Amino acid sequence: MSSARPTDDTTPLGILCGGGSIPVAVADAVIKQGRAVVMFPLIGWADPQAMARYAHHWIHVGKVGEFTRLARAAGCREIVLVGTLLRPSLKQVRLDWATVRMFPHIARSFRGGDNHLLSGVARIFERQGFLLRGAHEVAPEILIHEGALGSKAPSARDEADIARGLAVLAATGEFDIGQAAVVANRNIIALEAAEGTDRMLDRVAALRRDGRMRVPEGVGVLVKAAKPNQDHRFDLPAIGPSTVEGVARAGLAGIAIVAGEAIIAEPQQVAKRADDLNVFVAGVRRQP
Amino acid sequence: MSSARPTDDTTPLGILCGGGSIPVAVADAVIKQGRAVVMFPLIGWADPQAMARYAHHWIHVGKVGEFTRLARAAGCREIVLVGTLLRPSLKQVRLDWATVRMFPHIARSFRGGDNHLLSGVARIFERQGFLLRGAHEVAPEILIHEGALGSKAPSARDEADIARGLAVLAATGEFDIGQAAVVANRNIIALEAAEGTDRMLDRVAALRRDGRMRVPEGVGVLVKAAKPNQDHRFDLPAIGPSTVEGVARAGLAGIAIVAGEAIIAEPQQVAKRADDLNVFVAGVRRQP
Repeated sequence: MSSARPTDDTTPLGILCGGGSIPVAVADAVIKQGRAVVMFPLIGWADPQAMARYAHHWIHVGKVGEFTRLARAAGCREIVLVGTLLRPSLKQVRLDWATVRMFPHIARSFRGGDNHLLSGVARIFERQGFLLRGAHEVAPEILIHEGALGSKAPSARDEADIARGLAVLAATGEFDIGQAAVVANRNIIALEAAEGTDRMLDRVAALRRDGRMRVPEGVGVLVKAAKPNQDHRFDLPAIGPSTVEGVARAGLAGIAIVAGEAIIAEPQQVAKRADDLNVFVAGVRRQP
Repeated sequence: MSSARPTDDTTPLGILCGGGSIPVAVADAVIKQGRAVVMFPLIGWADPQAMARYAHHWIHVGKVGEFTRLARAAGCREIVLVGTLLRPSLKQVRLDWATVRMFPHIARSFRGGDNHLLSGVARIFERQGFLLRGAHEVAPEILIHEGALGSKAPSARDEADIARGLAVLAATGEFDIGQAAVVANRNIIALEAAEGTDRMLDRVAALRRDGRMRVPEGVGVLVKAAKPNQDHRFDLPAIGPSTVEGVARAGLAGIAIVAGEAIIAEPQQVAKRADDLNVFVAGVRRQP
């Protein structure tokens, strides 16, 4: 569902930044291609220290009019929305009139699951004259590729767990929920819904601590994919060093992600952390 | 998958008792029919106080030979396995020679998911000459029936959430995992795998506390079903007053369970607790 039009590299790319290290990874990849970037860090999510290196304007969630004015003044025509953005509490939202005028659209977007919500957000930006791009379009090198990232690769048993995980994710895909599962010895230990991958890994660690997992340490795989029909312009799953640490704490063998369907911020650090903790990180193919 | 043979009420029913109130509910229902019972409470799970009212013999998990000897001496030919039995830690298991001779069968049962494991347990008892009965066969009145149990019934919005929950459980059914989901405004908030229903409800309560659920208090349903192809002789899901309390703590509207596919211990207490906490408990039909 990505746009077919090539990106326009004569204008600076506007990056609306949530939390985590991915906004910076995207910015650096774009700059390396010779294109300018202007960061629009969201107050309460983006990391102030990381922003210092770039042209940036802090924005409150909810201020569509202010963002539009600043982004136009900076010459931006294409924007990318990237980084973690846990559902903001209403206390953190600041409104301006442009936002208020969009309330009917926003209200409509809040019905249905996450895909629906985010498609609504895309339409809101497009009504303001911007083109919403995906991080995978402007910086394809941040997507995970097929094969092992560090020095450890999945074993035959891990491959069986990966196949099982991909199968259960295919079954739940149509329900517009988090696409991650933990599988150990072909048993499905955990399925992600609204809680997110980190909390799911914490749960697996707790099950292991409480003796409620029958498999030894080092058995089991976190399997991740993008939602089917997900608009890849936002909300592609992302993994970083902290995901690797969560997998190690849960006593799992590694992480398998459908190649091209997740952002991998800081690949060198992820590979190093994976090697240090003796877990694998592998891009895999969806089964036919 | 229940046995077609009628139960034999001339011999006392042996009840292998795990934790919780269901063993007592089954025993009382059977006694009311005029049949004798002999309890075999499992050390570490069954409630000593509850056992005092019945003929009983305490048993260590793992002592098949001892159980066989005691049950035969008591004249039991049919047994029921009922109550919670979280996976025992190896420290709690005591072996005898009859158990050791069964190791090849037991090892085979430990591969695959829970259904597989429990079918293995059934075969082990049957090799000792007992007939394993389901609680639903010897005490059908403990199963949930269609309709509301307390005075509150599902709203139209709840009905839509229930339909969505049944659909996602149908999709995950073939994977031999816990059959429970929390759905709110048609969004799937949580899916149960190895953690069990109580922990899933705790997770939903935490998501709500942390502002990660977009729906107000009183919206959302816990939907439960038996696994498809589950052998109903054991491990039928059960709900009791504590399930109702977990649902209330998670801020949900109620519980929907596929009629005939769960044991409801202490129905009067469940109905009273549900009314006190303003949640519904309803038996529903699986969709075609």
